Amino acid sequence: MTRHIPFVRLALATAAPATLALAAACSGPDPTAAPGTPGSAAPGAAPAASGDLAALMKARGLSEDDVTAALKTYTPTGKKDEYFVFASGGHGGNVIVIGVPSMRILKYIGVFTPEPWQGYGFDDPTRALLRSGDRAVGELNWADMHHPALSETGGEYDGQYLFVNDKANPRVAVINLKDFTTTQIVTTELIQSEHGATFVTPNTDYIIESSQYPTPLGGAYADFTKFNDSYRGAVILWKFDREKGKIDKAQSFAIELPPYMQDLADAGKKVSDGWLFINSINTERCWGGNLEGNPPLESCASQNDMDYLHVINWKKAAEIAAAGKTTTISDMRVIGLQTAIDEQLLTFVPEPKSPHGVDVTPDGTGVVVGGKLDTHTTVYDIPKILQLIAAKTYTGKDPYGVPILDFKAAIKGQCEIGLGPLHTVFDDKGFAYTSVFIESVVAKWSLADLKVVDKVSTHYNIGHLVSAEGDTVSPDGKYLIAMNKWALDRFAGVGPLLPQNFQLVDLDAAKPRVIYDMPLPLGEPHNAQMIKADKLKPIEVYKPVGTNPLTHEKDAFAVEGGKERIERNGTDVHVYMTAIRSHFTPDIVRAKEGDTIHLHLTSLEQAHDATHGLAIGSHDINISLEPGEHSNVTFKVPKAGVYPLYCTEFCSALHLEMAGYLLVEPKG
Amino acid sequence: MTRHIPFVRLALATAAPATLALAAACSGPDPTAAPGTPGSAAPGAAPAASGDLAALMKARGLSEDDVTAALKTYTPTGKKDEYFVFASGGHGGNVIVIGVPSMRILKYIGVFTPEPWQGYGFDDPTRALLRSGDRAVGELNWADMHHPALSETGGEYDGQYLFVNDKANPRVAVINLKDFTTTQIVTTELIQSEHGATFVTPNTDYIIESSQYPTPLGGAYADFTKFNDSYRGAVILWKFDREKGKIDKAQSFAIELPPYMQDLADAGKKVSDGWLFINSINTERCWGGNLEGNPPLESCASQNDMDYLHVINWKKAAEIAAAGKTTTISDMRVIGLQTAIDEQLLTFVPEPKSPHGVDVTPDGTGVVVGGKLDTHTTVYDIPKILQLIAAKTYTGKDPYGVPILDFKAAIKGQCEIGLGPLHTVFDDKGFAYTSVFIESVVAKWSLADLKVVDKVSTHYNIGHLVSAEGDTVSPDGKYLIAMNKWALDRFAGVGPLLPQNFQLVDLDAAKPRVIYDMPLPLGEPHNAQMIKADKLKPIEVYKPVGTNPLTHEKDAFAVEGGKERIERNGTDVHVYMTAIRSHFTPDIVRAKEGDTIHLHLTSLEQAHDATHGLAIGSHDINISLEPGEHSNVTFKVPKAGVYPLYCTEFCSALHLEMAGYLLVEPKG
Repeated sequence: MTRHIPFVRLALATAAPATLALAAACSGPDPTAAPGTPGSAAPGAAPAASGDLAALMKARGLSEDDVTAALKTYTPTGKKDEYFVFASGGHGGNVIVIGVPSMRILKYIGVFTPEPWQGYGFDDPTRALLRSGDRAVGELNWADMHHPALSETGGEYDGQYLFVNDKANPRVAVINLKDFTTTQIVTTELIQSEHGATFVTPNTDYIIESSQYPTPLGGAYADFTKFNDSYRGAVILWKFDREKGKIDKAQSFAIELPPYMQDLADAGKKVSDGWLFINSINTERCWGGNLEGNPPLESCASQNDMDYLHVINWKKAAEIAAAGKTTTISDMRVIGLQTAIDEQLLTFVPEPKSPHGVDVTPDGTGVVVGGKLDTHTTVYDIPKILQLIAAKTYTGKDPYGVPILDFKAAIKGQCEIGLGPLHTVFDDKGFAYTSVFIESVVAKWSLADLKVVDKVSTHYNIGHLVSAEGDTVSPDGKYLIAMNKWALDRFAGVGPLLPQNFQLVDLDAAKPRVIYDMPLPLGEPHNAQMIKADKLKPIEVYKPVGTNPLTHEKDAFAVEGGKERIERNGTDVHVYMTAIRSHFTPDIVRAKEGDTIHLHLTSLEQAHDATHGLAIGSHDINISLEPGEHSNVTFKVPKAGVYPLYCTEFCSALHLEMAGYLLVEPKG
Repeated sequence: MTRHIPFVRLALATAAPATLALAAACSGPDPTAAPGTPGSAAPGAAPAASGDLAALMKARGLSEDDVTAALKTYTPTGKKDEYFVFASGGHGGNVIVIGVPSMRILKYIGVFTPEPWQGYGFDDPTRALLRSGDRAVGELNWADMHHPALSETGGEYDGQYLFVNDKANPRVAVINLKDFTTTQIVTTELIQSEHGATFVTPNTDYIIESSQYPTPLGGAYADFTKFNDSYRGAVILWKFDREKGKIDKAQSFAIELPPYMQDLADAGKKVSDGWLFINSINTERCWGGNLEGNPPLESCASQNDMDYLHVINWKKAAEIAAAGKTTTISDMRVIGLQTAIDEQLLTFVPEPKSPHGVDVTPDGTGVVVGGKLDTHTTVYDIPKILQLIAAKTYTGKDPYGVPILDFKAAIKGQCEIGLGPLHTVFDDKGFAYTSVFIESVVAKWSLADLKVVDKVSTHYNIGHLVSAEGDTVSPDGKYLIAMNKWALDRFAGVGPLLPQNFQLVDLDAAKPRVIYDMPLPLGEPHNAQMIKADKLKPIEVYKPVGTNPLTHEKDAFAVEGGKERIERNGTDVHVYMTAIRSHFTPDIVRAKEGDTIHLHLTSLEQAHDATHGLAIGSHDINISLEPGEHSNVTFKVPKAGVYPLYCTEFCSALHLEMAGYLLVEPKG
């Protein structure tokens, strides 16, 4: 990428156009240019004036490399980013959409947490959606989102759906990428925490969610004295109905696992399609109790030299489940551990101490495991593993009878990476990139000979990596993002709570290097997916007018212009209201103390970006109404008074006058 | 700034160093460099290689101006931004902290809306803080934040506090900039909506909040038939106790105003210190009713050629309030309209149709008003206004007896701006910058001769502007941000709901121009403040260990290392827990179904950025625990079971093992 043309020759060659370009630049904004378009000089016409550059570089303390990085990431007004990154919002319980290479945040998608600015959780459909994700203990208004997964067709991202998980309160949500809207949340009491989620099979038949901290299955209680017998892990295979765009819970099933801490997971692809890989830690089966005379969990759980990579035959498991060889625990069909063993659904392969990342290679022949207390990545040879399983060539069994394969026989080899390898992603040239926690680097290594070829220095507490189309059968290379959890010294101080730091790495350069530091100021964005922007075909407005975003169909209560009205039925007041620049109709709502108001609100707009909002004072209501959208809002009016209502989006010059009143008369 | 050195001469002059610099660049990351530092070439050593530049510019379609813009905004890893922007989070109910010139989001500050990722609203102190902002109708979990205001000393930002408002549910919040934490929310039932908030007096004696949509004062009910007699506006002057860092409600007071729609406000400074200016729309006193046979509000409210600029003597008003000439309405001392007239606290000056922005000039001698249905900005002459008031030179009275000054006698003049002037900010060279809605430009004009000298093309639905230190007595110039509400065609498509678009304008350039487009993907960021970053002195960790962020004192329940314990008192279980890499002590909490758990949690960390989180599965609890922070969390355990608890921040290599269990035994 960085060709070094002799400087003087280039300079002379471009002197004339450069001068012209500068003259043009001096004439300032082109009146014919689109709004906000800064310049008018022709793209690539000539290098920028060295005089200006030298002065600017000096003034802002920029190095040669900084200038290159700036030009590789700066995206002028009106130019679109090449890739979308869908990053988990961590504890924010939402999804962060980032443009690459500009690293600008383009959107937040409300998922598990109410988001008033988008009206999410503030109208009836989204409130019901959030409540559908509550668990037995009670209402949930946050999540610990970790691993977003894009829907795939033939192992390629198809840009249709995004799936996300909740580690703290095991749940999975479905996001429709037509309008970047959450449409479903599913949960089960079978497990009480998870981590290996979400990961999809190559055609998105199933969405994988596997448990992390062992508990009695189904939400039962048992003391630690019964840990080995009563505590279990499980992996859930949520069946996805692409036609309906929904998870089909009835067709979903789970497999019981021993009470280890199952960790990350990945689905096989190509030659390994049909198989599933989950690693595990704490095969020591420690449960802590540091104030009860037990050793601290972190040391107790780090004694064994080897833990177990779980190799699961999910296609056969689906047949076993279909054959009814399951027990229903809480509301989930579960294949028991003994059945899984008897049917050869579950096999273990030793993996070096305390593994974390488990990533299937693009060609599907290998699984890369990073042992966080190790110095290697281990590359497993899936065809070999499948042969050994077929031949039942076991070296032993775990305490629960799960057959174990021979470590050496099951691997392609190991790569000496450095201290604390975690996660691995891939490019289009046969290289793997592994985050190395203790060293704070990304190690670039060759899948062919398992040798490190380069290391990229990153910031502290590096965790997951994401590369362009990286989890598909054909990664793009080009860009990689290191998701670092610490940011000290990187950005201006904002108090004790600092942002995370996403560092964009340029994989096209002769030497991969960090070209952008992006502070991530919400939640603990954990993992992400990067997809070509042109694979998505989002809609711009809702058609027909009156569409309900959750169903993408016209709402039964959609209101037509001219047919606005208020209907009272006892203490229920139905308000059929429309919004269009610059008024609501009706703009006055009259009710009596104690009434229940059923607001049916349709935006008549069909112009892109002509969003309205509706706030009703003191009643905790803010609705965001995109062009053509319909929303239903039910609320009580407990106290007499006069409450202004108004449009909360700056929609027109007379936006402030797009207002009205809710009048609540005292009783009798 | 853009000096045009003849290209060839510069090129030859720098050829040698350039070549050297390139050689250095090719050697890649400097192993001795700080983590994440991309390059090693010396800052400003030489312009980047023209060869690389030309190729890069061509490849990414960058113009000359784009290159300059990129180098003016790109901020390499480890380099700090020069300014902080505190932008309202709009309907997000939070504050967005942005670095300038990089336009990267550095932090979100939870204010009116729960923010699980920072534990805001999920522990006892912040839950109580949120609930202290509820209004009579019920619980509120969102806000429509509009105008942040930084605390001032002598008319300069002092970097100590930030104040924000809620238009929908009239409230004001105080944020401590020591740790970017919300510490207080105040509200009163006196008014039911507001807009002219928050604005501070030059020494932050008072924080101004003025109503928008008229209602009966104190939350009473009255029909529109009584609109002229029973509906009113009001301006509240919240007394700020800088010593305590809190608003003193008992020392605060309000002034009753006629039932117009009071709009934006600003405080006088220097020669006009002690005075307050609020503009108004809808002096027609329309209330809508488009389904009740009335004309739509937006046309009815736009009939008058002139509305009224409210000129208020707040220093004298404070004396009148102190003298007890007030009536208490709900919980607020109110100076009645007649008293305000009798005591000469309130005077009107006509202002051209439907004004919006009202901005006092840095020297305090002028107020600039933009009439959104006008083509001018009007510059009022405050000394003249004060003379006219002193001499009681009135031309008439409004229907409520408020004296009115002569328009022509009260102004310095008008500036022909263009269609739809809204808000005005200032630089250090005597220029004013006004957002022009219909034209989508920022007009640069001279305060000296009221002539437009330049126009900067921006994107659609331009609203507020913010300039560096712009609301102080000594603005910096340098940077201006146009806060545009629309973003269509600017960024990659993300469905019907688009981000906002903050456009950074370079005021140092020969011609001011847009140098960065920043998508703002949460809420409707409305207005902002821009302050020199080095004016803030945020803390890095909480000292002493066990500090409560809301009081900045050691919490009564702070836990010392070694003194962790669990104490049961009936059904109340007090858990004294500490957190340090990589365990909680105790890591097991045992309770019985129906118990109430009182968790007292102290982080023993004192390393910058060593944040821990605590999630308790299924119980809707996530706490963010900064180094040294103490938090108290009270919650019920309604259902028997085994619930994992764990650290939600990626704190160390053994972060996954920083976990434990909440065991809830079934009842006897």
